[in-house]
Amino acid sequence: MQLDVDVVLFDGFELLDVFGPVEFLGSLPEHFRITYVAPEAGLVRSSQGAEVQATASIVSDRRPDLILVPGGMGTRALVLDTNFLESLAVYADGASWVTSVCTGSAVLAAAGLLEGYRATSNKRAFDWVTQFGAEVDWVREARWVHDRDRWTSSGVAAGMDLAGAVIRHFLGDQVAEAVAFDLEYAFQTDATVDPFAAGPQG
Amino acid sequence: MQLDVDVVLFDGFELLDVFGPVEFLGSLPEHFRITYVAPEAGLVRSSQGAEVQATASIVSDRRPDLILVPGGMGTRALVLDTNFLESLAVYADGASWVTSVCTGSAVLAAAGLLEGYRATSNKRAFDWVTQFGAEVDWVREARWVHDRDRWTSSGVAAGMDLAGAVIRHFLGDQVAEAVAFDLEYAFQTDATVDPFAAGPQG
Repeated sequence: MQLDVDVVLFDGFELLDVFGPVEFLGSLPEHFRITYVAPEAGLVRSSQGAEVQATASIVSDRRPDLILVPGGMGTRALVLDTNFLESLAVYADGASWVTSVCTGSAVLAAAGLLEGYRATSNKRAFDWVTQFGAEVDWVREARWVHDRDRWTSSGVAAGMDLAGAVIRHFLGDQVAEAVAFDLEYAFQTDATVDPFAAGPQG
Repeated sequence: MQLDVDVVLFDGFELLDVFGPVEFLGSLPEHFRITYVAPEAGLVRSSQGAEVQATASIVSDRRPDLILVPGGMGTRALVLDTNFLESLAVYADGASWVTSVCTGSAVLAAAGLLEGYRATSNKRAFDWVTQFGAEVDWVREARWVHDRDRWTSSGVAAGMDLAGAVIRHFLGDQVAEAVAFDLEYAFQTDATVDPFAAGPQG
């Protein structure tokens, strides 16, 4: 099994939302072939200032198997950018699986890609995120939510556990455990456990 | 308190070794000002293929407060590159704190920067790493090791817990807890707990 994975970059994407999942999926290059895409190919600036090269545009005839949309402060502009949202909807239509980390689910919802789905997002931005989309079943308490061909995770670091879930789904527990061991990370394997759903005093 | 943090990129650096710590430190831009440096400024290709822009060279008059050296397959060439190691030694001499993630400690050791220090590294590459340096007190069982002005972490994901330790050291527990809560990550706060020191069957 080999999946073409497109990671969508945009100005103000959150670094760990991208490079957490990419670290884990990318450690299995025989199974996950990663390409960085953006509204336009070229250098893209993250929330934290690091600039990363996107080698392709989402406005193309690309047909990846799986798309990953990160969050970050840049999502605040994207959810209002109707040209981008229309391009994303067309592009995502051609993919078999659509995933997001953190406030990336606000972008998916604004593009109409979560209608009729269960989904989650960052817990600090939950009230903002959940205003997007008409018929999205938002789940507050979840490390990630997998509903058919959509996978959405909670905030930032939760993207790594989503990547673990994706690896287990496609390749099984043993492969996921081997990856976690090599990278010295303990995947959270229960999607419903979410210590961050309550407030800091909760 | 504001520290200038230089993150050293090189061909074949490991993505999460860099962007794990940078996510956490970078979420406190009023305290940690991050610059990406490399042997030469320009695009630098990671182990997983992503290309990241380095805006400065280590062969310059830079005087950062703290240096972070990641690991990755690229370290295999760096430990043999005497020009690079000499440049790194001079550059690191001007910094108050020198840190590494994963096999980055092999690079520090090869540059003579861990002589007389306790240090750790990736557990899968431990036998390779520990051949570098003459008088390094290598610690196998540790999530990270802090010895005076040197901080070294275990493999890949351990760099995030090292970043947590750095934040606690400079800014206290409450700031670190707030960062972890915002980014939905549970820092490991005990440096001596290392489930990855034993083999997969251990």
